[in-house]
Amino acid sequence: MAPALPPLTVPALALPGWVRGWLARRAGSPLRGDDARMALVIGLAAENARRGSGGPFGAAVFERRSGRLVAAGVNCVTASGLSWAHAEMVAIALAQRARGGYDLGARGLPAHELVTSSEPCAMCFGATPWSGVARLVCGARAADAEAIGFDEGPKPRGWVRALAARGIEVVRDVRRAEAVAALRSYGGPIY
Amino acid sequence: MAPALPPLTVPALALPGWVRGWLARRAGSPLRGDDARMALVIGLAAENARRGSGGPFGAAVFERRSGRLVAAGVNCVTASGLSWAHAEMVAIALAQRARGGYDLGARGLPAHELVTSSEPCAMCFGATPWSGVARLVCGARAADAEAIGFDEGPKPRGWVRALAARGIEVVRDVRRAEAVAALRSYGGPIY
Repeated sequence: MAPALPPLTVPALALPGWVRGWLARRAGSPLRGDDARMALVIGLAAENARRGSGGPFGAAVFERRSGRLVAAGVNCVTASGLSWAHAEMVAIALAQRARGGYDLGARGLPAHELVTSSEPCAMCFGATPWSGVARLVCGARAADAEAIGFDEGPKPRGWVRALAARGIEVVRDVRRAEAVAALRSYGGPIY
Repeated sequence: MAPALPPLTVPALALPGWVRGWLARRAGSPLRGDDARMALVIGLAAENARRGSGGPFGAAVFERRSGRLVAAGVNCVTASGLSWAHAEMVAIALAQRARGGYDLGARGLPAHELVTSSEPCAMCFGATPWSGVARLVCGARAADAEAIGFDEGPKPRGWVRALAARGIEVVRDVRRAEAVAALRSYGGPIY
């Protein structure tokens, strides 16, 4: 018998079923300002925890100036069986799908920003420049996620400066207390 | 008119069509040792460049001890329109699909290793601990990829030690000259 070939297709990754209705009720109009955008992604994080559909992390890509929601993501690691499926990575991939290409900073597109309920881990930090976003807005700090047991990985100490040097503005501690409350609401597995 | 909802599904990501036949001809038996495994992923990198199906990068996940190929990946960024689709990320996702879960280091599984034709970028470095692999084998250095114009991102200076501290052994410069030749064979877009 010939040995089986390894798999050749990464399966599609769907957001949890509740996201459609949740977004339809909340995300109809553009969201002005960091606070309103952060409230949305903290809501996604808390709902993902409450529903048991993944880790307590939410993220979204917005058009920076208009505040139009381009894509939203939640942590889908356990449901998808894929370790890359952090909220930020899912939001970026969905935004790239919405925009039809791998570079959200491409000529002819409006500037995009990534808003995340919790500071990106080492992987999502490394993915940020490749995504083409021009700005990164964070709620909770890595230390807050680590305080509930999540590992944020070996991010360079000067990560904010490293993104700034690449033209990506970083804003931290937006609604941090609420973002921390969403983290603390989580009772599922740590991975 | 109600505003359109953002996309809710990241589409499936298929390896380029040539990979099936290429692997079927080469990957039937377990590959013993780093040199043989590296030769396979350099072949994937060179073929991806030659066919114009993506960047000159190949990677694979093997069972460390048996040398059985679990999954192979090539860079699919331009074809997929997804900035996360680096060869290492694709190989890890396919290996997790093959193993049925997000942790290749889970109890009951054999140890896995990631073999990559070129040292991981900042994103793939950050993704390595989350994947569950126990070992990382690299061909070309980041500086080699940067010499042909690719950006490897802000990886921590002590990245090898950082992985070692997490129990992930790193081996570098395996068939480096051949890996560099594969990089140099590339004539496609830089992104």
